[in-house]
Amino acid sequence: MSLHGSYDDENIFAKILRGEAQAARVYEDEHVLAIMDLFPQSEGHMLVIPKARARNLLDLPADAAARAIERVQTLTRAVEAVLKPDGVMVAQFNGAPAGQTVFHIHFHIIPRWADRNIAGHGQAGQADPDALKALAARIAAAIEA
Amino acid sequence: MSLHGSYDDENIFAKILRGEAQAARVYEDEHVLAIMDLFPQSEGHMLVIPKARARNLLDLPADAAARAIERVQTLTRAVEAVLKPDGVMVAQFNGAPAGQTVFHIHFHIIPRWADRNIAGHGQAGQADPDALKALAARIAAAIEA
Repeated sequence: MSLHGSYDDENIFAKILRGEAQAARVYEDEHVLAIMDLFPQSEGHMLVIPKARARNLLDLPADAAARAIERVQTLTRAVEAVLKPDGVMVAQFNGAPAGQTVFHIHFHIIPRWADRNIAGHGQAGQADPDALKALAARIAAAIEA
Repeated sequence: MSLHGSYDDENIFAKILRGEAQAARVYEDEHVLAIMDLFPQSEGHMLVIPKARARNLLDLPADAAARAIERVQTLTRAVEAVLKPDGVMVAQFNGAPAGQTVFHIHFHIIPRWADRNIAGHGQAGQADPDALKALAARIAAAIEA
């Protein structure tokens, strides 16, 4: 998969955005959907998915990028309030060699603790969906207006 | 260093923003300064530094975050046009446990190639400043209006 290519409407995030696939939803508005990552690299690993039909940052409208990072910021504050991590990584991968596995643009919010290692993506296995939904609800409740 | 703390006006990016320290400058406007990373994790590793006096994403004004990601997008397109990487990682680290080493908010743009490994931050050593300036000029020339 290169940085340039056509958008696949059957990618998993497109299905989640259309409501055809399940996810632990944290937040939604006209610009983004935020969900818990089903294969978390750390506790509280969240994804902010712009609704624009874009593979990556190269083909995302600038306004959609701006709205997305504003939501990333708001949601980073919320996860920080709930889980009190020592740090937070924000990452956005473009192209398979950069770590992108789903070819609909998304931002990762990955809490970090000084005394915990991070898991490789997918290496820690799938999280319990009910636990993710409970955590999603706690984070959603901490979002500041 | 925790996620919360006071801003140190003597951090290296503050000095670069004030023109008190050198850097291979790529782009500057009222919102951001973009420079080549002096300790590149890959060829073309760039930093987009919001001018706002903020340690991290938690204390950055939302408007500054929006303007920054728009510049990250424009500069990602420029580095892609010049170096033709197979992928690009965009990363923004908050707090030392997340990999932040300079406590003025910044976004990393890290080109990736399928057949090259990424260096740990600082592990590849310091780049040649003249080579960085030459690359900065090539990327600057590729920025689309």
